[in-house]
Amino acid sequence: MRTHFCGLVDEALIGQTVTLCGWVNTNRVQSHVVFTDLRDHEGMVQIVVDSDMGELFKTAGDLSVESCVRVTGSVRARGAANDKIRSGKVEVLAERIEVLNKAEPLPFHAHENAGEETRLTYRYLDLRRPEMQKMMRTRIRLVQSLRRWLDERGFQDIETPILTKATPEGARDFLVPARMHPGEFYALPQSPQLFKQILMVAGFDRYYQIARCFRDEALRADRQLEFTQLDMEFAWVSERDVQDTVEGMIREVFKDTIGVELDAQFPRMTYAEAMRRYGSDKPDLRIALEFADIAELVKTCEFKVFTDWANHADGRVIALRAPGAAGWSRKQIDEAGAHAAKHGAKGLAWMKIEDASKGREGINSPIAKFFDDATLAAIVEAAGAQTGDAIFFGAADYKTASDFMGALRLKLGKDLGLVGEGWKPLWVTDFPMFEWDEEAQRYVALHHPFTAPAVDDIADLRANAKTAVSRGYDMVLNGNEIGGGSIRIHRPQMQSAVFDLLGIGAEEAEAKFGFLLDALKYGAPPHGGIAFGIDRIAALMAGTESIRDVIAFPKTTTAQCLMTGAPSPIPDAQLAEVHVMVRPKDPA
Amino acid sequence: MRTHFCGLVDEALIGQTVTLCGWVNTNRVQSHVVFTDLRDHEGMVQIVVDSDMGELFKTAGDLSVESCVRVTGSVRARGAANDKIRSGKVEVLAERIEVLNKAEPLPFHAHENAGEETRLTYRYLDLRRPEMQKMMRTRIRLVQSLRRWLDERGFQDIETPILTKATPEGARDFLVPARMHPGEFYALPQSPQLFKQILMVAGFDRYYQIARCFRDEALRADRQLEFTQLDMEFAWVSERDVQDTVEGMIREVFKDTIGVELDAQFPRMTYAEAMRRYGSDKPDLRIALEFADIAELVKTCEFKVFTDWANHADGRVIALRAPGAAGWSRKQIDEAGAHAAKHGAKGLAWMKIEDASKGREGINSPIAKFFDDATLAAIVEAAGAQTGDAIFFGAADYKTASDFMGALRLKLGKDLGLVGEGWKPLWVTDFPMFEWDEEAQRYVALHHPFTAPAVDDIADLRANAKTAVSRGYDMVLNGNEIGGGSIRIHRPQMQSAVFDLLGIGAEEAEAKFGFLLDALKYGAPPHGGIAFGIDRIAALMAGTESIRDVIAFPKTTTAQCLMTGAPSPIPDAQLAEVHVMVRPKDPA
Repeated sequence: MRTHFCGLVDEALIGQTVTLCGWVNTNRVQSHVVFTDLRDHEGMVQIVVDSDMGELFKTAGDLSVESCVRVTGSVRARGAANDKIRSGKVEVLAERIEVLNKAEPLPFHAHENAGEETRLTYRYLDLRRPEMQKMMRTRIRLVQSLRRWLDERGFQDIETPILTKATPEGARDFLVPARMHPGEFYALPQSPQLFKQILMVAGFDRYYQIARCFRDEALRADRQLEFTQLDMEFAWVSERDVQDTVEGMIREVFKDTIGVELDAQFPRMTYAEAMRRYGSDKPDLRIALEFADIAELVKTCEFKVFTDWANHADGRVIALRAPGAAGWSRKQIDEAGAHAAKHGAKGLAWMKIEDASKGREGINSPIAKFFDDATLAAIVEAAGAQTGDAIFFGAADYKTASDFMGALRLKLGKDLGLVGEGWKPLWVTDFPMFEWDEEAQRYVALHHPFTAPAVDDIADLRANAKTAVSRGYDMVLNGNEIGGGSIRIHRPQMQSAVFDLLGIGAEEAEAKFGFLLDALKYGAPPHGGIAFGIDRIAALMAGTESIRDVIAFPKTTTAQCLMTGAPSPIPDAQLAEVHVMVRPKDPA
Repeated sequence: MRTHFCGLVDEALIGQTVTLCGWVNTNRVQSHVVFTDLRDHEGMVQIVVDSDMGELFKTAGDLSVESCVRVTGSVRARGAANDKIRSGKVEVLAERIEVLNKAEPLPFHAHENAGEETRLTYRYLDLRRPEMQKMMRTRIRLVQSLRRWLDERGFQDIETPILTKATPEGARDFLVPARMHPGEFYALPQSPQLFKQILMVAGFDRYYQIARCFRDEALRADRQLEFTQLDMEFAWVSERDVQDTVEGMIREVFKDTIGVELDAQFPRMTYAEAMRRYGSDKPDLRIALEFADIAELVKTCEFKVFTDWANHADGRVIALRAPGAAGWSRKQIDEAGAHAAKHGAKGLAWMKIEDASKGREGINSPIAKFFDDATLAAIVEAAGAQTGDAIFFGAADYKTASDFMGALRLKLGKDLGLVGEGWKPLWVTDFPMFEWDEEAQRYVALHHPFTAPAVDDIADLRANAKTAVSRGYDMVLNGNEIGGGSIRIHRPQMQSAVFDLLGIGAEEAEAKFGFLLDALKYGAPPHGGIAFGIDRIAALMAGTESIRDVIAFPKTTTAQCLMTGAPSPIPDAQLAEVHVMVRPKDPA
């Protein structure tokens, strides 16, 4: 239908006749000439029709914005060149214009940013915007680049089922009633975890899949009901084999997709160190701020909150410098406090260092009175605070204090403009094997129940479950966990022991994971892997906060597709075919 | 963990020390030496341990089949070479053997073909068999090759949702209750049809996706609940653009994946011609047999079944030669009749041409008596039958006669050994736009309701709906429809008219397809596409009848995964969270 793409018409074509197809981007009459910007996938070109062209002039003048047209004409040099676009030095003098599909007046102008609800309802118009095209294409290039890298290295791309058995990875499963099995249900996979382990047992050696995964969880801004991960698994490996391989992959893919050179070697940090220095298992290293532990300094001070936690076996007292925040208003301080409270703080003490040379006199703080001069000076020194800075304090049990001060650190970084430029990758390793769940009074798996412990000995693991470290690892980039994985348990006895420690009895284990335990009995090789969040990596590469900008048809935070109207009611007769009915509303 | 793959150890490594990981394929003691075939992803190598090796000899002798081991040893030339494998000229003299995971006695021997139920239950053992590895790798290479071809040509790989709105493509949808919207449901897509059309409206120009699709239909041998298609769509194209492009792709991918050169130009045939000559819209051209239409010859004969249909406006009388079937037994003839009956025949008349030179005397047939000599001779000539052949006859309405004689043609081809070697691709075009559904007393779409008619004029289409031809096309290979597509309707008025002809009222159209009709209003470009069945193409390439051989974790014909046990009952409390309940059994 066309001889060239609009966006690729340039000086080389001057004097030639071209046929172009595209959308009317803008259309204006000026000095008896119609100027039409025609746009396609590759960009834009200017079409001109003089008033002496009779019928053609009228056709051109009447073109509505976003109509589809086919234009034949000759390419000529343009008076006022537009250096921003490839076709900016030429224009096409139209000889024929065919309206392929006239556009009605638009619900919103495709070249302006409308509200997200409108954009999602008319997603086809939203996606036509060059910004959206650009972000979507970044994602497409990312996935292409990943596949190329993996294919070249012999990773086998294998599809695993979407209709499968209810899985046990913490989140809620989506359920699908089975027509041929009344009262039974398939579940959509939260990840291909068990299938990829089975593939290693099946002898596939190295596997990958760009896999759709499903979690029926409350939607936060950066979550979708369905999401995409690069799922990988390797047989006969240790954690360093996996890490080194995928670190090389990520480095090459960043270079290939967006031209960014990441560190030649990603820094490494244990979970314990990350919590100690940054209060997060995915620290954003673009922010230079670090915690100072001051429990030793305040064990005997007069501030009860501090002394209580400083003397508690599981307590922590943290000082965090806020560079340049000495001038903050009461309102700003309160906002910081509210943010910390949202993340578990019961209060947020602070000091403003108005003049470091003046000692106590230079410090503005409601809690300064609780410390003697030496302690006060030691605290300021420990925090590294100088004139013009503030210090915020957190005291609580280790985890709570770390969590809310970690959240505060991110807020300070942002509010104070301290988030550095560039890309800061990081490996976080040596995660705890288990977390104690107070409510359930049992251990829960920090990664998932198939993660191998660092110790090989079952008795050792049982005896030291509380402090046991796993063979799990996360790849973090600019404060985002972009990948997570582990070496898996490959011996049935160890897998049974871990189920047992997690309170999964033999019967439940058999019912839920019998096939995995069976598979491990028949010569399962040592294996491990990792999964990367494609939506998040694409969003980071595209420079957008929202993963919805790199998903063609995302759902809202209320789990709806505004374009198609999903979900929707289904006639009862159709539900009867799959042996379910809508539950009558609870009378309460 | 390893220095080399087992299957890649060869003479170049003689004298070197290697460390290998793999499974014990076989293990035998012979003349005080343990011979172990160690197998990995790349193949096998022989490990030897002499009886003078003490503890190592015992370890080696005790290895159970399919155990995972790590072996370190030196490579040396082997006495009796095995030319079939790369490592056949060498063996590894073990110095160290580490049992990584001992295998229990196997439920079936991984190197024998067990029953399919056992194979699917222990799929991880089944997949270890070299035949299965080979078939799965053919599929993997096929998909790689397709992607490479498409990526190089600027097709954009875009993911579309799995949780979407109930779609209308004929088959039954899988439903997913929506937790956040009580009483509402998502549906799994039968194909990304509407999304890919929307992507063209959204300006993506050329799209592809290796897409998972779902149809809740009765499972036949070659169907799965979920299947994979290469889904493609092009903007600004005519049917020839699409066909020529994907024909080139299929040709290159066959060469690349299995080294097969397909025809430089695929033959083309209209739907009408395919039905006339072969009684099928996906004729297997490897079978040279063709129908002879003999209605003109039998209009006035004495065989009422023939004369009735020969004089009927919509009737058809077909003769089909069965080369070499004159010697068939009564039982064989009856089997042919039963096969035709299964496909709609009320009876199957036949003639055996025992001696063509003898005229009526040489013909053995219960119906010969109904024809005069001239007619009899004309029938034999029309069918092209010679001494030793049989002729089968079908008389019915056009569609029924074509269908059952088409089915018979395939059976004859197979039973008589007439299926030629090689690959016979074909384009089938000019499908009818509509089929009349007697039961529903309305038209149904032969492709789907978004397929464009060959005529552009709505009044013309309405006036000639019965004979209207669509812009649909199928790619057929060896009797399999491997791809199907069409140019789509891109104007809202035409789309509404087609909905109307299909008995989809304005209100229903708005409720189900409002977003499509809206999208067509805002400058939808002319567009079209195609979808290829990946499972089927992979099975053809791998030389297997069953698509289950090229799917890692297939379901049975009763829609179960024997390995995981899906589907399974779900606790009522969990169903309550998504606002459904299992329907009480119908008291009847």
